[in-house]
Amino acid sequence: MTTATLLISCPDRPGLVHAVADFILGIHGNVVHAEQHVDTEAGVFFQRVEFDLDRARIGRDQLAAAFAPVAERFEMDAQVHFSDERPRVAILASKQPHCLTDLLARWHSGELNVEIVAVISNHPDHAALAEFHGVPFHHVTVTAETKAAAHAEITKLLKGYDTELVVLARYMQILDETVLDEFPYRIINIHHSFLPAFAGARPYHQAQQRGVKLIGATAHYATRELDEGPIIAQEVTPVSHRDTVADLVRKGRDLEVVTLARAVRAHVEHRTLVFGNKTIVFE
Amino acid sequence: MTTATLLISCPDRPGLVHAVADFILGIHGNVVHAEQHVDTEAGVFFQRVEFDLDRARIGRDQLAAAFAPVAERFEMDAQVHFSDERPRVAILASKQPHCLTDLLARWHSGELNVEIVAVISNHPDHAALAEFHGVPFHHVTVTAETKAAAHAEITKLLKGYDTELVVLARYMQILDETVLDEFPYRIINIHHSFLPAFAGARPYHQAQQRGVKLIGATAHYATRELDEGPIIAQEVTPVSHRDTVADLVRKGRDLEVVTLARAVRAHVEHRTLVFGNKTIVFE
Amino acid sequence: MTTATLLISCPDRPGLVHAVADFILGIHGNVVHAEQHVDTEAGVFFQRVEFDLDRARIGRDQLAAAFAPVAERFEMDAQVHFSDERPRVAILASKQPHCLTDLLARWHSGELNVEIVAVISNHPDHAALAEFHGVPFHHVTVTAETKAAAHAEITKLLKGYDTELVVLARYMQILDETVLDEFPYRIINIHHSFLPAFAGARPYHQAQQRGVKLIGATAHYATRELDEGPIIAQEVTPVSHRDTVADLVRKGRDLEVVTLARAVRAHVEHRTLVFGNKTIVFE
Amino acid sequence: MTTATLLISCPDRPGLVHAVADFILGIHGNVVHAEQHVDTEAGVFFQRVEFDLDRARIGRDQLAAAFAPVAERFEMDAQVHFSDERPRVAILASKQPHCLTDLLARWHSGELNVEIVAVISNHPDHAALAEFHGVPFHHVTVTAETKAAAHAEITKLLKGYDTELVVLARYMQILDETVLDEFPYRIINIHHSFLPAFAGARPYHQAQQRGVKLIGATAHYATRELDEGPIIAQEVTPVSHRDTVADLVRKGRDLEVVTLARAVRAHVEHRTLVFGNKTIVFE
Repeated sequence: MTTATLLISCPDRPGLVHAVADFILGIHGNVVHAEQHVDTEAGVFFQRVEFDLDRARIGRDQLAAAFAPVAERFEMDAQVHFSDERPRVAILASKQPHCLTDLLARWHSGELNVEIVAVISNHPDHAALAEFHGVPFHHVTVTAETKAAAHAEITKLLKGYDTELVVLARYMQILDETVLDEFPYRIINIHHSFLPAFAGARPYHQAQQRGVKLIGATAHYATRELDEGPIIAQEVTPVSHRDTVADLVRKGRDLEVVTLARAVRAHVEHRTLVFGNKTIVFE
Repeated sequence: MTTATLLISCPDRPGLVHAVADFILGIHGNVVHAEQHVDTEAGVFFQRVEFDLDRARIGRDQLAAAFAPVAERFEMDAQVHFSDERPRVAILASKQPHCLTDLLARWHSGELNVEIVAVISNHPDHAALAEFHGVPFHHVTVTAETKAAAHAEITKLLKGYDTELVVLARYMQILDETVLDEFPYRIINIHHSFLPAFAGARPYHQAQQRGVKLIGATAHYATRELDEGPIIAQEVTPVSHRDTVADLVRKGRDLEVVTLARAVRAHVEHRTLVFGNKTIVFE
Repeated sequence: MTTATLLISCPDRPGLVHAVADFILGIHGNVVHAEQHVDTEAGVFFQRVEFDLDRARIGRDQLAAAFAPVAERFEMDAQVHFSDERPRVAILASKQPHCLTDLLARWHSGELNVEIVAVISNHPDHAALAEFHGVPFHHVTVTAETKAAAHAEITKLLKGYDTELVVLARYMQILDETVLDEFPYRIINIHHSFLPAFAGARPYHQAQQRGVKLIGATAHYATRELDEGPIIAQEVTPVSHRDTVADLVRKGRDLEVVTLARAVRAHVEHRTLVFGNKTIVFE
Repeated sequence: MTTATLLISCPDRPGLVHAVADFILGIHGNVVHAEQHVDTEAGVFFQRVEFDLDRARIGRDQLAAAFAPVAERFEMDAQVHFSDERPRVAILASKQPHCLTDLLARWHSGELNVEIVAVISNHPDHAALAEFHGVPFHHVTVTAETKAAAHAEITKLLKGYDTELVVLARYMQILDETVLDEFPYRIINIHHSFLPAFAGARPYHQAQQRGVKLIGATAHYATRELDEGPIIAQEVTPVSHRDTVADLVRKGRDLEVVTLARAVRAHVEHRTLVFGNKTIVFE
């Protein structure tokens, strides 16, 4: 069954739910899932509606145009997606393999309904892993001197692959604005702390230093403000005085893997909407 | 702001979301929260819609009648509630005070929007606590011989108070069918295990015996089948080989308190619908 | 069964476990629980040993003196406690009752083996609750002008009750150094965030603003550095874009209650040792 | 730094901690971690002591003999292990790859200090994955008719590899007693429910049927009693009425992976001791 998904945001006013339901009923679609949210402070309405097209009176290529009058009338910002489209995802990684290995395995097993188009790394280590999964691998060295050139090359590669989502799978380089601006809210990073605690470098060292009793991981959209982008998912796990930094690193890996995968899944299933610096994550 | 809540279940078919939205728009209501669920296997649609009545064209006493044609057309089982109605709740407790104390405190602080009409116990211990909160207290002794009479008295008390919800706050007596049948899906029990594990007596002893690494608590509607009713909420907490039964009892208390309160809150906010032996809990 | 507990810290070196075991065996004590920890970076050894005295060859009043030579030989900082001593605890609270109610209920039920000697508040609201539990209540108004005098009065009250532990149960005033210095590592505060995130005022507002997906609570020893003292316990719970600040406040209350109670329990059972800015919490 | 680990169980009596500490001090070892537990009901003492041998007066090959008199005197059941020994592990898997992939990746990254000697499967699917990791792969078909022969072949393979631990990584065949008896408490299984709830077949279907609000995974030693062996680790995650069986399966995979890895890690680090039907898991 192919479904269509409408992702909508607009000024809140009465009749929005009705208008969307009316449209779907009119084209003989059938709602399989709908969720809405109102930011009452900002007066903004958000909705995700998934409906099947099996008996629809119009073709999928006509859907966006058919909805346009509704969108216009209510000043909606609307996206249309189809469940059989597989977003094109590129993964950037550094030395540590756990997030990369996990994403490839989830893709391989069919859990992530995406096309992984490339693995890019500032280290050569993961070439064999990428090859095992039949994914092109690119080694792009990044040094203080070559940074601008490296980022230009990365951007070129990402665009060459028609990349729709970039996943930073413990990629240890800070992307500059030339890359970030190319993919607004389409770059997901995993930070190895419970943000906003322990932003910046070496969060597990910071956590051990502060003596916290829980450590965390945060998946967020990467923006120009380092570790400040809209949060998609967070997880924590208990630690104690017995845990060395190495223990935190080990325990943290399991958090990072699961938190990043959850965020990627939410994005590629079109369940996320960014508003201000927050992410609405529909279920 | 007073809101109305429609709780609906009916055979699934296209147009249901539209029909409800259409009705609310038609009476000039404004949806503040809506959530729906389809049990695809059973082909049943469930919805909870909360809408404000500030500019509604009809009075609240006309609402049920106004909705009746919609309900009839779609064979809906529909409930109508208003946010300023406070469900009348009676609490049954035994010796252990923690769930009773917690519910009274949540009520006292305004967190639970209910009327606590009575505390009934098979022990006299909690009379002072009930009095402190200004709630009538009834001591109804239950022995093997007096069971039928005791249950008749309890039923009479509950009916006398126009009780809408009965909460078994670690009430250690098994209610017989004369009580249960009087309040279908309106009696909430807290069982001190992660059901269906460790149903029946002394679940913490069973848990310690089995060597589990987590213990749990389960809030469920009490039915004729002991510990088999529809589950509303469950929580767990880690334990280890170091924990004695007394430790499990102590750790479990915090679970019981929170799990029962969550379930009661969901019920009195009209966020629960029972279907078969499962509880749909809207958020 | 009365047990004695030794809480030890000293420079790490071989033979420490042996020396303590040797001492206990020598006085015919029997170890019921022992836990040690070495901070390898700092080279410091920590131990908590609990042993029964039923067949001990010396009286409990002789124990400290008997252990002194061992402590001296290994440069130990050693505390001796007995399980039948009930630490004298004072609770400071403001308007919000949940932590105060919870601590009193745990004490009432015997879960907390302490003597609650007084409740002090900058509001008169909790007088009846304290009276219900038979605990003296003191209303000490705090304003910008009267702050110094108020703190002097609080200190005088605490000292007058021979207070051994002060619990800030959502006490919304910042204690000044005259109070803090009187009770080093003997004042436990509950902060309503996952520290170090959202230190300072209105943490739930900060959390909602940042769009985090988990909120937390942190129990820590209060020191001169606001919200920077050694952490004893932390808990978190999931939240979503649907949660208003009021929802976070409500969900947070359950975290605060449980986290504070865990920390108080660890302290009064002599399971905490502060080293640097961290708390070792033995199990 | 190479460490030795003593794993001890014996009848409880005074002087046990002292005797072990005395032995280690006597050979010039230095305790880096010690943890003990007393099952007071059964009167049994358990201890895990890890100590470094850098300045030890005796060689590691002499250690067991040197400790024998202590063990004999106190009727100890004692195991001696060294941190540079890598347990030989065989993994049995079926169609589902997630636990197998995860264990191989943890081994590859150095997180699991073992030798993975073979992957055995009743399906041919994972040959390439095993080969990628340089691990021998054996496809042993199991049908109703060939079961006895298949089990004989599996046992032969396991013994041929000098297997010390067998991990059932979602192996969907029930091992018969000829295999089980060969590896007492050295076969770890992952069951996809929170045991003892939903033992047996299709636990996610059972869970969905019962309407539980949490699902779980349980790692345990496989014994003759199916799903009844001593539990090593358990984890849970929240679910709701919205989750289909397919959702439970997907969410459960993350639990299974982490729970099995934790149990395997505890076993190969010699932190588990089985007593009766329970597993003591030292930290």
